[in-house]
Amino acid sequence: MEKFSVVFYPDDITVSVDKDATVLSACVSAGIAINAACGGDGVCGRCKIRVKKGKVYAHASGNLTFEEREQGIFLACLTEIQSNVEIEIPPESRLSLERVSRKDLQISVDDIYTKSEDIDSGPVVSPAQAYRHVPLATKIYLELPQPNLDDRISDLERIYRAIRAHNDLRIVQTGLANIRRLGELLRSADWRITVTLGNRNGTTEIVLIEPGDTAARNYGICFDIGTTTLSAQLVDLNAQKILGTKATYNKQINFGSDVITRIIHAHSQEGLAQLHAAVTDELNRLVLELIQGHAVDLNDVTCVVCAGNTTMIHLLLQVDPTYIRRDPYVPTANFVPVIRAHEAGLKINPRGLLSCIPGVASYVGGDITAGVLSCGLDKQEDVCLLIDIGTNGEVVLGNKDFLISAAASAGPAFEGSGMQAGMRAAKGAIQKVRIDPKTFAVTCDVIGGGLACGICGSGYIDILAQLLKLGIADKSGKLQAKECGRVRKGDLGWEFVIMDQQASGRSGGIVITEADIENIKRAKAAIYAACSSLLKHMGFDFSSIKKFFIAGGFGTYLDVPNAISLGLLPDMELKRFIFVGNSSLAGARSVLLSGQAALAAEDIARKITYLELSVQSDYMDEYMAALFFPHTDIAKFPSVAYTHR
Amino acid sequence: MEKFSVVFYPDDITVSVDKDATVLSACVSAGIAINAACGGDGVCGRCKIRVKKGKVYAHASGNLTFEEREQGIFLACLTEIQSNVEIEIPPESRLSLERVSRKDLQISVDDIYTKSEDIDSGPVVSPAQAYRHVPLATKIYLELPQPNLDDRISDLERIYRAIRAHNDLRIVQTGLANIRRLGELLRSADWRITVTLGNRNGTTEIVLIEPGDTAARNYGICFDIGTTTLSAQLVDLNAQKILGTKATYNKQINFGSDVITRIIHAHSQEGLAQLHAAVTDELNRLVLELIQGHAVDLNDVTCVVCAGNTTMIHLLLQVDPTYIRRDPYVPTANFVPVIRAHEAGLKINPRGLLSCIPGVASYVGGDITAGVLSCGLDKQEDVCLLIDIGTNGEVVLGNKDFLISAAASAGPAFEGSGMQAGMRAAKGAIQKVRIDPKTFAVTCDVIGGGLACGICGSGYIDILAQLLKLGIADKSGKLQAKECGRVRKGDLGWEFVIMDQQASGRSGGIVITEADIENIKRAKAAIYAACSSLLKHMGFDFSSIKKFFIAGGFGTYLDVPNAISLGLLPDMELKRFIFVGNSSLAGARSVLLSGQAALAAEDIARKITYLELSVQSDYMDEYMAALFFPHTDIAKFPSVAYTHR
Repeated sequence: MEKFSVVFYPDDITVSVDKDATVLSACVSAGIAINAACGGDGVCGRCKIRVKKGKVYAHASGNLTFEEREQGIFLACLTEIQSNVEIEIPPESRLSLERVSRKDLQISVDDIYTKSEDIDSGPVVSPAQAYRHVPLATKIYLELPQPNLDDRISDLERIYRAIRAHNDLRIVQTGLANIRRLGELLRSADWRITVTLGNRNGTTEIVLIEPGDTAARNYGICFDIGTTTLSAQLVDLNAQKILGTKATYNKQINFGSDVITRIIHAHSQEGLAQLHAAVTDELNRLVLELIQGHAVDLNDVTCVVCAGNTTMIHLLLQVDPTYIRRDPYVPTANFVPVIRAHEAGLKINPRGLLSCIPGVASYVGGDITAGVLSCGLDKQEDVCLLIDIGTNGEVVLGNKDFLISAAASAGPAFEGSGMQAGMRAAKGAIQKVRIDPKTFAVTCDVIGGGLACGICGSGYIDILAQLLKLGIADKSGKLQAKECGRVRKGDLGWEFVIMDQQASGRSGGIVITEADIENIKRAKAAIYAACSSLLKHMGFDFSSIKKFFIAGGFGTYLDVPNAISLGLLPDMELKRFIFVGNSSLAGARSVLLSGQAALAAEDIARKITYLELSVQSDYMDEYMAALFFPHTDIAKFPSVAYTHR
Repeated sequence: MEKFSVVFYPDDITVSVDKDATVLSACVSAGIAINAACGGDGVCGRCKIRVKKGKVYAHASGNLTFEEREQGIFLACLTEIQSNVEIEIPPESRLSLERVSRKDLQISVDDIYTKSEDIDSGPVVSPAQAYRHVPLATKIYLELPQPNLDDRISDLERIYRAIRAHNDLRIVQTGLANIRRLGELLRSADWRITVTLGNRNGTTEIVLIEPGDTAARNYGICFDIGTTTLSAQLVDLNAQKILGTKATYNKQINFGSDVITRIIHAHSQEGLAQLHAAVTDELNRLVLELIQGHAVDLNDVTCVVCAGNTTMIHLLLQVDPTYIRRDPYVPTANFVPVIRAHEAGLKINPRGLLSCIPGVASYVGGDITAGVLSCGLDKQEDVCLLIDIGTNGEVVLGNKDFLISAAASAGPAFEGSGMQAGMRAAKGAIQKVRIDPKTFAVTCDVIGGGLACGICGSGYIDILAQLLKLGIADKSGKLQAKECGRVRKGDLGWEFVIMDQQASGRSGGIVITEADIENIKRAKAAIYAACSSLLKHMGFDFSSIKKFFIAGGFGTYLDVPNAISLGLLPDMELKRFIFVGNSSLAGARSVLLSGQAALAAEDIARKITYLELSVQSDYMDEYMAALFFPHTDIAKFPSVAYTHR
């Protein structure tokens, strides 16, 4: 097979590919995360690249204008390499990370109970979260009595006996690898050893036996494996302290931005292995960055806890997720036994453990279980709601007596996906706008300053809230005020121009189209209807809700009054809304630190009922009623007032 | 490195070796089991070979006569190859298997309780041995309800639920490999599957998930891993039937005939790996022969139970046995957790389990635990003794209330090792003689007929008993009757000629020397003294013993009156002696078939106290007193009468 070199700019990374390989697959080889929301089907039109030099064959695409083609701009997924080429990846096609920031990851639900504090340096487990501190892996330093003629139990039983003096555990497993080294190790260590005990599904295993006293060095990693974002925290398991947090995009995005596209890709030849490698490579990189940044030895990382949606956990474990999306939508495993992390390709201590937070159903995963655990929904006296608006939207209603969940088919609109000028909350994204009520002049707040490349989810909410308030958009989402000079008819229908081509870093300028507004309307209606259907199903309404927990990266940046004015959130007192940040990561951390929390997570996963909205007749009514801004029943939103034109 | 070819006759096997390699190492490469009792140190003089052609460098050895060297006879361990060579291995240097026969292996202790029967076709577990039938691995056929919108638990939990309908087991582990295949497997199998449940240290694991109904095909293997002999039985785990039994020599003999030599070898570079491979290769060969002979698929062999002495189990698991022979003689593990057989290099189903019967101490291993289990010593009302005379000699005294054990340093004399004309009980071994009381003419009973090559253990007992009875040897073991024409002075002192060079297949003829008699005397004294010391320690004497169980291959061929006349066995009513054959194998089989038996074995191993004879002052007295035939205190052997000369 003929081979060509591909140089990517501005990264200046060169890879070698076969003739006819797509630019998208070359990006994957080069480790460049590119926006391929549709998974490389040529549908989303988001993976635009510019061919600077060399020959390519570009399949036709309605997503490209004639001018773009003239400039050498093509879709990475539809462009096949025919010679050595040089390719530039524009910022808007790229997944960058500037705004997956500390704040995003670290406003933890622990802080609901305690004062907010910089948890980088504070204790992880707040007093109110009363799970006993017994990490997934515990180290015990033992000074064993030397054997003599009166005390000749075997080396292994000598260790068991000493452990039992600390804790009456029934040890059911010790790996052969440990036993093989044991005789020599004990004697060269002069009978002073550190034993790492792992909690494996309620039984105790000797995970490691090390010479000397290493008990002070026991670290764990918790991961939140999101469809879009991967977050990792390095935790000192003894001190119960977070040492550091890192996040990155989930490189599986190269194979599609949503779980369905990835499930389809997993079914292809090599697809499952590619998706598995894409996520584990990134997780391993996060681990390395974390330990290097905190002078921690990889061998002292003894355990990992992962929270993620059901598809993400299947892909992490390289388990075929096909049946998640086939009627009747059954995952292969919700409760995954504790295994060795290396079995899933995670590189910590080779014998270290991996626990995955149990999921509830195909579309309500362990990230939601972790969220419930983390915000203590399962312990509330009052009825509360938890919503997690990520790439998917999940809702849990309940208290100490019941828990019921639903998945809202919100689509990725709030992540900027599938929108004309949408992008993730990264450098160059417009996150806030001010529209002058008289002149309609628009001023933008761009992440990282500099040239705007697109609009992120919270930017859309902000823009739309103002369009509605000013009457530029009406309740159904149609653009009015066509006289204002900023509403124009584009290729895809009416659009409001935020920034024209000259002012922006985006060809064609930055606009919000009626189709975009429709997308947002459907997304917000899906989430609102999921909440109201759950409430109705249980005989409640929004007035019953004492606490409305909002989780997820998007949630953290959500402006509640704006969200209410759109009808995304119900019209309640603002103080009832509680941002819980990355509650999935916080829940995973609890499980890392406490076997009791792990049992609580299992209880939660078992206790949560899953309501399939698509078969609920009420749901469609609720959804249809919510397909207005803020709602067809305006009485539900007394505080919202729009300008009428 | 220069390479030479070595052709072995009469095997006609050719191997290629480096220059300066020893003939012994070439034998190992060729898979030829040769008698290297001392482990290749040039000490035992048993590995004689003849160089037919080619150049060798033979180190000097006192074990070779001038004539032998003239004939090209050298010690394999001291002979280095210097060219392409052809080498003949004489029968007496070779380990062959003719007499490790069905009878040896299959007279089972089960028959103590039931009528003796051909256990090849009969039930394994006799009714009196009331351990409930729950094999180490159990197969259950499940017809799972298909998931639907009202029943959407995950695939794995669906299986758990169905298993719990059979049996309320808490399943704590399911291998990731099983989970990875699960979604596809369940659907292609139309939800009809067979689950193999394994008992792993008191918890339940899903070992295998197979499509369709394979429940009828569930087989296990039990092994007795002796220092000299490996025995294996293929068991139908459902029907509780032995399908077949095979035995072979333990090829570790190439590295030394006794455990001490092997422990030393294990400490050398590659030594542990070589010893591990030597035993596992043979065990795997036995498994293949067994399954091929009974049309069983290897994947249907789901578990293995091994009984063996502590060193053998360490070597099987490739665990360094060094500390077994170093003061204070502590093994690395007596209780080995259940692991996957493949981890120890045993080739059954790749996920199949391996359980090792727990041992008591460095020199009282799991074979003895299995023996106690098998003969039900731990359930006896009366005080009983169990002796196992193999390469080592172990003794257990006890009943339902107590169990105490000791290891007798008997040495390998009863296995024909370290004796002038000694050989294992193989083809060409003299096993019985008749000495005419008047003419002293000797007639021999040779195993397999044909030319005699040496004397096996039971042959020595028989010869010595007659020499004593006829007064040719006196009570101290000195040869008398020097006038008889058969007692002569050889290179190594006085010897009795059984067969001269012409009549025998052995250069120098076949003799029993005073040194041989001394060896036997020490061996029998060690065993007798071990029994009497244990009894004395517990306040008993031989008259307290209601049943005297004799286990082991050698035991099976032991002539009790002869053994009494030597003072090896106490002078008791013959009916109290019970031959239990390979009780180690029988015990392993019980554990294979019953989790209850496995627990009983653990209880036994924990309950058995180990008495270190070498630090017992009484033991040396008992031993010294037994250093006569039959004993210094002739009142202990009223039935024994010798001719006095």
